[in-house]
Amino acid sequence: MSHVIVTDITRADSASIAELEALGVATVHEAMGRTGLVGTGVVPVQAGAKIAGSAVTVLCWPGDNLMIHAAVDQCEPGDVLVVTTVSPSLDGSFGELFATALQHRGGRGIVTSGGVRDVAELREMNFHAWAGAQNAQGTVKATGGSVNVPIVLGGAQIQPGDVVVADDDGVVCVPRERVTEVLEKSRARIAKEEIARARYQEGVLSLDHNGLRPLLAELGVSYVRQQESTIGD
Amino acid sequence: MSHVIVTDITRADSASIAELEALGVATVHEAMGRTGLVGTGVVPVQAGAKIAGSAVTVLCWPGDNLMIHAAVDQCEPGDVLVVTTVSPSLDGSFGELFATALQHRGGRGIVTSGGVRDVAELREMNFHAWAGAQNAQGTVKATGGSVNVPIVLGGAQIQPGDVVVADDDGVVCVPRERVTEVLEKSRARIAKEEIARARYQEGVLSLDHNGLRPLLAELGVSYVRQQESTIGD
Amino acid sequence: MSHVIVTDITRADSASIAELEALGVATVHEAMGRTGLVGTGVVPVQAGAKIAGSAVTVLCWPGDNLMIHAAVDQCEPGDVLVVTTVSPSLDGSFGELFATALQHRGGRGIVTSGGVRDVAELREMNFHAWAGAQNAQGTVKATGGSVNVPIVLGGAQIQPGDVVVADDDGVVCVPRERVTEVLEKSRARIAKEEIARARYQEGVLSLDHNGLRPLLAELGVSYVRQQESTIGD
Amino acid sequence: MSHVIVTDITRADSASIAELEALGVATVHEAMGRTGLVGTGVVPVQAGAKIAGSAVTVLCWPGDNLMIHAAVDQCEPGDVLVVTTVSPSLDGSFGELFATALQHRGGRGIVTSGGVRDVAELREMNFHAWAGAQNAQGTVKATGGSVNVPIVLGGAQIQPGDVVVADDDGVVCVPRERVTEVLEKSRARIAKEEIARARYQEGVLSLDHNGLRPLLAELGVSYVRQQESTIGD
Amino acid sequence: MSHVIVTDITRADSASIAELEALGVATVHEAMGRTGLVGTGVVPVQAGAKIAGSAVTVLCWPGDNLMIHAAVDQCEPGDVLVVTTVSPSLDGSFGELFATALQHRGGRGIVTSGGVRDVAELREMNFHAWAGAQNAQGTVKATGGSVNVPIVLGGAQIQPGDVVVADDDGVVCVPRERVTEVLEKSRARIAKEEIARARYQEGVLSLDHNGLRPLLAELGVSYVRQQESTIGD
Amino acid sequence: MSHVIVTDITRADSASIAELEALGVATVHEAMGRTGLVGTGVVPVQAGAKIAGSAVTVLCWPGDNLMIHAAVDQCEPGDVLVVTTVSPSLDGSFGELFATALQHRGGRGIVTSGGVRDVAELREMNFHAWAGAQNAQGTVKATGGSVNVPIVLGGAQIQPGDVVVADDDGVVCVPRERVTEVLEKSRARIAKEEIARARYQEGVLSLDHNGLRPLLAELGVSYVRQQESTIGD
Repeated sequence: MSHVIVTDITRADSASIAELEALGVATVHEAMGRTGLVGTGVVPVQAGAKIAGSAVTVLCWPGDNLMIHAAVDQCEPGDVLVVTTVSPSLDGSFGELFATALQHRGGRGIVTSGGVRDVAELREMNFHAWAGAQNAQGTVKATGGSVNVPIVLGGAQIQPGDVVVADDDGVVCVPRERVTEVLEKSRARIAKEEIARARYQEGVLSLDHNGLRPLLAELGVSYVRQQESTIGD
Repeated sequence: MSHVIVTDITRADSASIAELEALGVATVHEAMGRTGLVGTGVVPVQAGAKIAGSAVTVLCWPGDNLMIHAAVDQCEPGDVLVVTTVSPSLDGSFGELFATALQHRGGRGIVTSGGVRDVAELREMNFHAWAGAQNAQGTVKATGGSVNVPIVLGGAQIQPGDVVVADDDGVVCVPRERVTEVLEKSRARIAKEEIARARYQEGVLSLDHNGLRPLLAELGVSYVRQQESTIGD
Repeated sequence: MSHVIVTDITRADSASIAELEALGVATVHEAMGRTGLVGTGVVPVQAGAKIAGSAVTVLCWPGDNLMIHAAVDQCEPGDVLVVTTVSPSLDGSFGELFATALQHRGGRGIVTSGGVRDVAELREMNFHAWAGAQNAQGTVKATGGSVNVPIVLGGAQIQPGDVVVADDDGVVCVPRERVTEVLEKSRARIAKEEIARARYQEGVLSLDHNGLRPLLAELGVSYVRQQESTIGD
Repeated sequence: MSHVIVTDITRADSASIAELEALGVATVHEAMGRTGLVGTGVVPVQAGAKIAGSAVTVLCWPGDNLMIHAAVDQCEPGDVLVVTTVSPSLDGSFGELFATALQHRGGRGIVTSGGVRDVAELREMNFHAWAGAQNAQGTVKATGGSVNVPIVLGGAQIQPGDVVVADDDGVVCVPRERVTEVLEKSRARIAKEEIARARYQEGVLSLDHNGLRPLLAELGVSYVRQQESTIGD
Repeated sequence: MSHVIVTDITRADSASIAELEALGVATVHEAMGRTGLVGTGVVPVQAGAKIAGSAVTVLCWPGDNLMIHAAVDQCEPGDVLVVTTVSPSLDGSFGELFATALQHRGGRGIVTSGGVRDVAELREMNFHAWAGAQNAQGTVKATGGSVNVPIVLGGAQIQPGDVVVADDDGVVCVPRERVTEVLEKSRARIAKEEIARARYQEGVLSLDHNGLRPLLAELGVSYVRQQESTIGD
Repeated sequence: MSHVIVTDITRADSASIAELEALGVATVHEAMGRTGLVGTGVVPVQAGAKIAGSAVTVLCWPGDNLMIHAAVDQCEPGDVLVVTTVSPSLDGSFGELFATALQHRGGRGIVTSGGVRDVAELREMNFHAWAGAQNAQGTVKATGGSVNVPIVLGGAQIQPGDVVVADDDGVVCVPRERVTEVLEKSRARIAKEEIARARYQEGVLSLDHNGLRPLLAELGVSYVRQQESTIGD
């Protein structure tokens, strides 16, 4: 097993990243054709946070955070640490000291399939985390791993330099080369949603707005009044 | 598989629903003889919310929210959307646009075994949700299902028009024809609890208040001082 | 199966308990040599709470809270109720009435592998809980169990009178006879962390502060610039 | 909470039950319009068993098997015991002694959301079980419950006298009043599958047999040779 | 964190161990007063195996099997390796090579909260395992731990030299100093069960054999014929 | 979301695939540097099967098997169908009819994060499956997806034409371009293991064979006789 720390990774431009952050996970995920979502195993440690940043990826041994130490060195302002382990582990490999070091370098937050600790301190510092668990269980610094290699986190493959967007709805990864396309599709989606929202606020039904009544008929869905229904009798 | 949308369902009276909301899930569940609880798989998406409303039930295909579109049309002021899928799915089939439409119609909230998204927006709108997950994963509108048929949600069977009560303790379903009985038993329970609370605040032990010491003796539970104990040696 | 309620248990001194509370779970767990952690199955019911207290242990039958009634009688100011069941159960065996009784006696909170209910009321009362679930499901008072016997809660063994520390990072148990040693090790750790924190705030890397670069080399971790990398091609 | 043991339940005819057994779970579930499946939380304790029988339903307190004792009395030849608890519990409430008693009365097996024990003995006796766990954990006989009331088991509602079919694919419940309809639809499905099977054995593709190519085109699914593909680049 | 390998542990006598093996987990667990069960997280890797042996306990770092290497050296004929990790891990830390070494020394099997691999080979060798998972994921040999210290495995505390009994119903731990008592209670239980079995084979109901009808009445459980029942209407 | 079916994928040579099959998952995974493992969420449906084949990858909508119909058309002798869904689903999207069609084309088996059904029939046909569940729950054919695109299955990324190896220890994916390297490393490992196995059969300890005693000393692991030990007192 050869281990490597890849330096000088390419990142997306900061204006695009800021726009992805403002759009949020649900919109970006739709614009991605519903790919790139990490899934429900990684949840926000705080409520209401919304970030986007360039992924510095970290692959650790379970119970070992040596490579996070190495990864902090690779972080630049606007980066997000994205950490996983070679086999499942919820140990608390990241805490307030790491957050202090990362904040000093301008890091935006951490996304990890593992655990974080010092959670109260992280919230006070306004350092945002998405994790598999809140867990005091500490780790050693004994086994090699890699930084800035492609990793699999939940159902998503993440390359270093990809843009990671995270909020209360989860975490999505936008491949760097798709950023422009995803922004365009997101803007189109936002425009479309604004129209829908306005109409729904006027009382138009989504059934009608989306023209779904013929589909219901085609699928054999019929309307019956309750007194005629024999369902459940 | 025949699909149906049942219209014009019968609901409980709004005064009873309001009283059930004030009582909360734990009390109502006790008054129900400890039946009707959805269980720990459906959790509050926000803290501190407490609602009750008439169930508009929705049965969807996994990964498909077509029938939620159809269900909104069946909602009246005071209703709660109660959604499940024919096989388990945590996809985010409900978000801010649906909430906008539902709020316009006076809907009280959503209870779903699946996922919700746009969670930050739902909290800002003060639209309450209980769900199996917070999940950006979107859905299609391709497969038929039913609205206002009996459904199974966790460990509870829910009929359209039943009263659903939800708070931080979970979700309970009160069958429409049992509302009067449940209200009476709830009031009795509240009265009993007030007496207990007052006595506990004076320092009376629940062991004594409930007359449990003879039961302990009967079950062979004995008291020993720690120095006499041989447990764990 | 013989059941017993052990009275007059020995506790740690209150000054030590107060200091353990201030230190928090992550620091104490480290000072314990990373033992005694309950694990991620028991989570805080509120955000930001931090307590420590002497364990009054309770072993119940699933679905039965008789022994919690008996345990309240054994609680003194500063105690924490630590409850588990002989086989897994998430039933809500503890709620606002118990909390009222316990607060009257000066109890600090509850840690349970089972469920708690009346969660909104517990938060309003400022009564802190760590539990396996928020669950309205009630319990009976029919089957015997024990109070103040050694119990296993998650991955920790807990003796009556041990000091239980709980915060957003989880729950850790400090055996009473190790309190002095753990306090000393915790203070040393805090001192060490303060130095690290100060250096990280100046921009020193943890890689350098901890002297980890030789270890990376020894483990065969090499640095490559991204354009030279063939990973993932 | 009122408890009841319902006697003299109505059952389906034994010829229909035998035919449902031969058809198996997957076919019957399809014929039911894909409803009535218990779900993946209840699994076969042995490999290769296939049974059908009339449901004698049992609702127990967690950790308590008193009502199974009462239920055996209600079993007739061809019945299947269908057991659940008012809140989740995997305790081993059923073992070899119950199986001995049930076999004497002609019972076909047990389906339970809880646990079974004496598993090696059950296999030797050729007594079939589907359960939430294999678990030596025993139960008490202390708390009331009901026999032959409607219960919810996983995602299915089961009435006493319904026909329960179980094999390696899971457990499905056929409401008694739908047995004739389900048998007819099952036979039609079997006939249709035999044609498909014969064609597949000749090398006909299911894409063609089911006429799915136009649907793929309509959904925008395009064919590309690998060298032209840009996916994943 | 100080690590230790304890040598020359005291074991129970082999005749008692052989008798515990013949009794099996369910009977022994009952005789223990229903304590000492590991729980449903550790399952048999093969069907039909039944063993008992003296526990050689091993506490490993997640993802690291160094201490299993050290533990094999401490095994004598009749021993069972009992392995856990300081935080949860399902890595396959034990496989065919370890089984080969252990079989040479007369070891009876392995019980682990973690994973095992080479499962097909283990079955061919007739080497029995109970584990948290079947998992090819390998481990390193880099971090210290302990051998023959008290460990917590699922819901059981296990001391070195305790007797571990394992079969299809799970794993139970008998503290060495309780072996004689547990054997006596087990024999009494077996005798009692033989009487019950014989009566059940004659058609006596367990309701009557255990005198449960008065309890049902006392708990308010009433009998109704189905046509009189209003349940579910 | 654009959907695509990639045809004419490149495969590894059949001699290499056969050798990987004989080596098995644990050895291949080690030779891969412990990467490429699917993980414990996908388990063998039968005991003792061992296969390897070229991956034909399938990405489906949850609850929908349309793309499996399209994928069978892309299978050649020696292929393995590797199926996942865009969001988690355990529906039984694959059964005996698909297996019949696949066996006709020389397919070796299926690996899926979802469910399979007709499990008894699959075992009788000797068609091997690794799946997330045994589940009768059927699927529709309504929503587009892709065939032979890169997918994420558990913790592994799988490209079409990669070699998938599966046995009782799980499933591992060997990227096509690494096959030669992995075979060489596997052979070296096998040779090394044969030496170890022979020595262990002679009674040599793995501690000595691997030269681990100095490491134990370096990590501060000390040996004490039980009577001197104070652990657990």
